[in-house]
Amino acid sequence: MKKIFVVGAGLSSASLIDYLLKNSVNYDWEILIGDLDQELANQKLKNHPNGKAVYFDVFSEEMRNSVVSGSDIVISLLPADLHYLLLETCLRFSKNLITASYVPDELWKKNQEFIDKGMTVIYECGLDPGIDHMSAMEILDKIRMEGGNILSFKSSTGGLVATENDDNPWNYKFTWNPRNVVLAGKAGAQYKQNGKLKYVPYHRLFERAEPIKIEEDDNFETYPNRDSLKYLSVYGLHNIETMYRGTIRRSGFSNSWNQMIKLGLTEDSFVLENSKNMTYRELLESLLPEGKSADIREKVASYLNIEIDSTEMKKLEWLEIFQDKIIPIAGATPAIALQKLLEEKWKLNPDDKDMIVMQHEFVFETNQKDINKITSSLVLTGKDKTHTAMAMTVGLPLGIAAKLILTGQINKKGILIPIQREIYKPILEELQEFNITFKEKKEKIKKGNQSPLL
Amino acid sequence: MKKIFVVGAGLSSASLIDYLLKNSVNYDWEILIGDLDQELANQKLKNHPNGKAVYFDVFSEEMRNSVVSGSDIVISLLPADLHYLLLETCLRFSKNLITASYVPDELWKKNQEFIDKGMTVIYECGLDPGIDHMSAMEILDKIRMEGGNILSFKSSTGGLVATENDDNPWNYKFTWNPRNVVLAGKAGAQYKQNGKLKYVPYHRLFERAEPIKIEEDDNFETYPNRDSLKYLSVYGLHNIETMYRGTIRRSGFSNSWNQMIKLGLTEDSFVLENSKNMTYRELLESLLPEGKSADIREKVASYLNIEIDSTEMKKLEWLEIFQDKIIPIAGATPAIALQKLLEEKWKLNPDDKDMIVMQHEFVFETNQKDINKITSSLVLTGKDKTHTAMAMTVGLPLGIAAKLILTGQINKKGILIPIQREIYKPILEELQEFNITFKEKKEKIKKGNQSPLL
Repeated sequence: MKKIFVVGAGLSSASLIDYLLKNSVNYDWEILIGDLDQELANQKLKNHPNGKAVYFDVFSEEMRNSVVSGSDIVISLLPADLHYLLLETCLRFSKNLITASYVPDELWKKNQEFIDKGMTVIYECGLDPGIDHMSAMEILDKIRMEGGNILSFKSSTGGLVATENDDNPWNYKFTWNPRNVVLAGKAGAQYKQNGKLKYVPYHRLFERAEPIKIEEDDNFETYPNRDSLKYLSVYGLHNIETMYRGTIRRSGFSNSWNQMIKLGLTEDSFVLENSKNMTYRELLESLLPEGKSADIREKVASYLNIEIDSTEMKKLEWLEIFQDKIIPIAGATPAIALQKLLEEKWKLNPDDKDMIVMQHEFVFETNQKDINKITSSLVLTGKDKTHTAMAMTVGLPLGIAAKLILTGQINKKGILIPIQREIYKPILEELQEFNITFKEKKEKIKKGNQSPLL
Repeated sequence: MKKIFVVGAGLSSASLIDYLLKNSVNYDWEILIGDLDQELANQKLKNHPNGKAVYFDVFSEEMRNSVVSGSDIVISLLPADLHYLLLETCLRFSKNLITASYVPDELWKKNQEFIDKGMTVIYECGLDPGIDHMSAMEILDKIRMEGGNILSFKSSTGGLVATENDDNPWNYKFTWNPRNVVLAGKAGAQYKQNGKLKYVPYHRLFERAEPIKIEEDDNFETYPNRDSLKYLSVYGLHNIETMYRGTIRRSGFSNSWNQMIKLGLTEDSFVLENSKNMTYRELLESLLPEGKSADIREKVASYLNIEIDSTEMKKLEWLEIFQDKIIPIAGATPAIALQKLLEEKWKLNPDDKDMIVMQHEFVFETNQKDINKITSSLVLTGKDKTHTAMAMTVGLPLGIAAKLILTGQINKKGILIPIQREIYKPILEELQEFNITFKEKKEKIKKGNQSPLL
């Protein structure tokens, strides 16, 4: 009996755990769920005979040793900066590990150790990164196999509220870790456009949003996501003219979010002296220079150089950020204070569904005359509060990857990301059973008529 | 014979070393100068019989042990992030240490260890921090002794080129570590103004510059410097209305420097892929969005939202930053590339002198009727290329502090900064012998007429 150890029983775990339990019967697996909240872990198991919930504190070396040593695969749903603890223990006992996080650059130094220990360590195996790699590589490989020369690759993904429940002026609700959303883009972004490398610092990132149309809906935009240049070599696209990875939001979001950045509300490097007794109006005051006007709205509009009755100001007003409403967290940074407010305003209602949108665009030449464009899109609405589109798209690839390792279909060792055919093909095939499928559109463009980046 | 070990024989060391050598005769000291460049260390000694130059690599534990164990005091002129290596060794052998750097917050955890070992560890004992603390505390203590209630304290310092040699459109030349100038303000700033705490993120910091008049010269400005709030408790000014520490530049500098930040030229968190073959025009292109115009000057002016014939654009033009001039450093960040260009354009000529300006402003009540204002200013021009105003004002306080420890006049143990009368009084007195003196101006202001912050 093989043992799979899932670490973390939070929001994103439901679809993964259901998948593993369902398959455990056929494959004779035991599924261990570890969480600081053992009851939460237990609920997810719904009394399944192959499931077991354990109290698990990742900071306890003793617990790590005891549970990891008895498992065959560890699936880590922990925050990205905690995987190393599990990985350290996996290395001690030669166990496999799977996560949906980005590979930290420094991890590659350890790759030979993982290989020597016979471990398979899969990173970037969720949605973004994850399904984006898989679905992109499937088409890239096909184009290359048919002799196409790829000129441009752009890929954008977003986690949003479902269109039918999109009822606030920001056209956004939290469907994923709010802290990651508040701090999104902090490291700036890098991409390649028409042959030129582009570098964007954080404080100008959200100005770069461009419209994007997804399956006839043109009410979306995309802004650059992290370091796209890294994927030039990962995807084997060294000679490409345009290489862009982006994050999708509803139109207008980025410009309004940029006002938060301009105000300093996303700053996370210093603690507000008296945040527990501070109101949001006072927080704004503390970020603004002393001015002639005593009116907070006038001061903010003037500092942002926007009209007092502009859409951006109306969105800020809707957040109640100009009001004397207590923060009320001690030792908060501006980002933590903002997150607290947004968690209340951007909360999903009990019946709200979420939505994942992903779109790749490939431009390539096959002969001297024509340029071809393939657009491949995924739009997935969540089933309910538990089986959200996010939980399915992040959790199912992790679960399928675990199955492929345990059944010997993935037998490569060392650090892998799902860009190889032997990994992405079976995962994408099985995802279709869950209606996670891409729609493809092919066009021919006359040479010289290809559009710029977006 | 007492031994003083000076680590670092660079630009800022001349006045310190001269001072120590001169005093070594009376006090029977041996002065050891350690540097990776032993010849440079040797030159600074000018064959003085009490001086000795050694090859010293701070990363060699063996060397640290061998030299520190034989010394009574270590004076570290190393970059701030390297002091800990020396301090570790000082702790092993119970030796004293003096530096001009800020006390790292986490160092206070070790204070009891230093006290137990009988060590005196003086930080912030140069110019800024250093002379600013001493000269401010002298007046603050006097006001408080006379029963005054302090309402406002503002203190600004700047290292500039001497007025007579101020001949470029930026009115600035490097008189100190260029990298620190390029990265200045990265952590943002915090201060208190009219009873309100103020937090400024980096990308808006240089917009906060305000005019400041120093000894009848009103061609200066000051922008907020780091965390002034920390000094509320250090200076014992908990109930003060305004607490501000600033950096002085010539008028107009901050606004133009802000354009560099807006462009992303001070970014230091990512490496440019091909910086060795890149030109400055190309660097700018890589930071700009693709636009309609092909002209780099038009693109920059539009991105910065300034006129193409504005003063700011003229200053950028003067730097030759729009030209196809090779960077030419491999693996450069934008900040490193910018520094390279500025080191050439903002270089002191061989006969140029530097200048230190410092000004404190104290506003306090002594009775119900009047509000008093004291302005205390230092303007110091360097003697020559070696004995710059910066070398004197950073080096001499370190040297005098060493003398005070060795002669038993400073006998407190643990971490000290020069805010106690027993430290600042003798140092300020001796600095007068080097013409480092403050001019004081007293005014009475009618209540209600006090100006805002600056």
